[in-house]
Amino acid sequence: MRALLAESLHMGDEGHNRNKAGSLLFTTRLAPHIVQSAGDPALAAAILEFLGSNALSVLNPVMAACKASADAGFGIEGSTIVSVMARNGTDFGIRVSGLGERWFTGPVGMPRGLYFPGFTAEDASGDIGDSTITETAGIGGFAMATAPAIVTFVSGAPKDAINTTMEMFEITFAEHKYFTMPALDFRGTPTGIDIRKVVETGITPRINTGIAHKLAGVGQVGAGLVRPPMAIFEEALIAFAEQYGY
Amino acid sequence: MRALLAESLHMGDEGHNRNKAGSLLFTTRLAPHIVQSAGDPALAAAILEFLGSNALSVLNPVMAACKASADAGFGIEGSTIVSVMARNGTDFGIRVSGLGERWFTGPVGMPRGLYFPGFTAEDASGDIGDSTITETAGIGGFAMATAPAIVTFVSGAPKDAINTTMEMFEITFAEHKYFTMPALDFRGTPTGIDIRKVVETGITPRINTGIAHKLAGVGQVGAGLVRPPMAIFEEALIAFAEQYGY
Repeated sequence: MRALLAESLHMGDEGHNRNKAGSLLFTTRLAPHIVQSAGDPALAAAILEFLGSNALSVLNPVMAACKASADAGFGIEGSTIVSVMARNGTDFGIRVSGLGERWFTGPVGMPRGLYFPGFTAEDASGDIGDSTITETAGIGGFAMATAPAIVTFVSGAPKDAINTTMEMFEITFAEHKYFTMPALDFRGTPTGIDIRKVVETGITPRINTGIAHKLAGVGQVGAGLVRPPMAIFEEALIAFAEQYGY
Repeated sequence: MRALLAESLHMGDEGHNRNKAGSLLFTTRLAPHIVQSAGDPALAAAILEFLGSNALSVLNPVMAACKASADAGFGIEGSTIVSVMARNGTDFGIRVSGLGERWFTGPVGMPRGLYFPGFTAEDASGDIGDSTITETAGIGGFAMATAPAIVTFVSGAPKDAINTTMEMFEITFAEHKYFTMPALDFRGTPTGIDIRKVVETGITPRINTGIAHKLAGVGQVGAGLVRPPMAIFEEALIAFAEQYGY
């Protein structure tokens, strides 16, 4: 999955809301195995049709890979790096590596973006979902500079995509070793949100997100951008100072 | 093919030397049909494996589509637009729309670029192949701004890819209606080489090309950039002035 993501980030994906290339890579790699294990050619064809025509086929495997990656940085003594971000439609929660399993939560925002035909901001749920584990791991909104075409989906101009990534360099610890962005001279994506930098700069993470309908079962009605509440980073930093005796 | 190319140009392809996304789109679209017509699942799997792992699977269909597109502009009375460019390892030839089937030819250059392991410029053939019909139709080298990752294959830095496209706007008639480049605010690719502009500016077309071995049968040994000789554009312009009585 890491190699697939590295490749798809060179093909205009940011890995969260734009997974067109990743989904094609995923489908193409699986195709020979699907054909040989499906038994019935009509069934194999239906599976390939479904996987190949869904531009988000690979999103859930990507999320799992990002979760595994972020978990590797969980529970590191003294670390101020965010190890999880997640939303449930009501609260936005983060965990910080050096603070273990403790959650810091606050009210979610409403994503701003573009709606599918027939839907408006009236229909939107508050920010929801586990998919922002992608931004936690250094892709998604953080990698938008490599995915300028995504602005047709989440709103804005290509320059905004570059600016989003540049802003995230301000609040992250490192540049990713494997996820590079050709348009920025192959610089690594901004990775590892540092709560100290968030509080110091006043810059919260930028999240590329799908927008869900407020009624359960309707599903996705749009896509856009959202940020977590600043207060949870401040609370986490105070807790960090208390725990480590600063 | 036009829709496929439009999509792949939003996924980091320039359509000549980088066709990774186009080849995946092509493989994925064909996959359900291959499975149902191959009969034997092992045969279907082998075909999908081959198409899906070859980053240039779609190049020949792309060339045919570009040829069809360029042919639509062939033989237009009074047109100074180039309707064909081709190389045979010895000569570079162009045709001009308003001058019909007449060829203007001159000695080919040697591409400058990167070689596959084990090969050097000593092994290279002179510039060869029909694939520069892609540049004739407004993609390939002309669309490099949308494919910054290609510089790892043909040499140079991402900025060079942008500069190549910007330079080609100087010698072309239009911006493509369907082939747009997200990184340049969705501007259309520079399309329709005008021999008047080539001669006036002193800028020859930039071609992204594979480099073939000088011995027949060895095949591709690298990839790089090359330009046609200026003299053939000058000759064509003089012929144009004679034919049309300027």
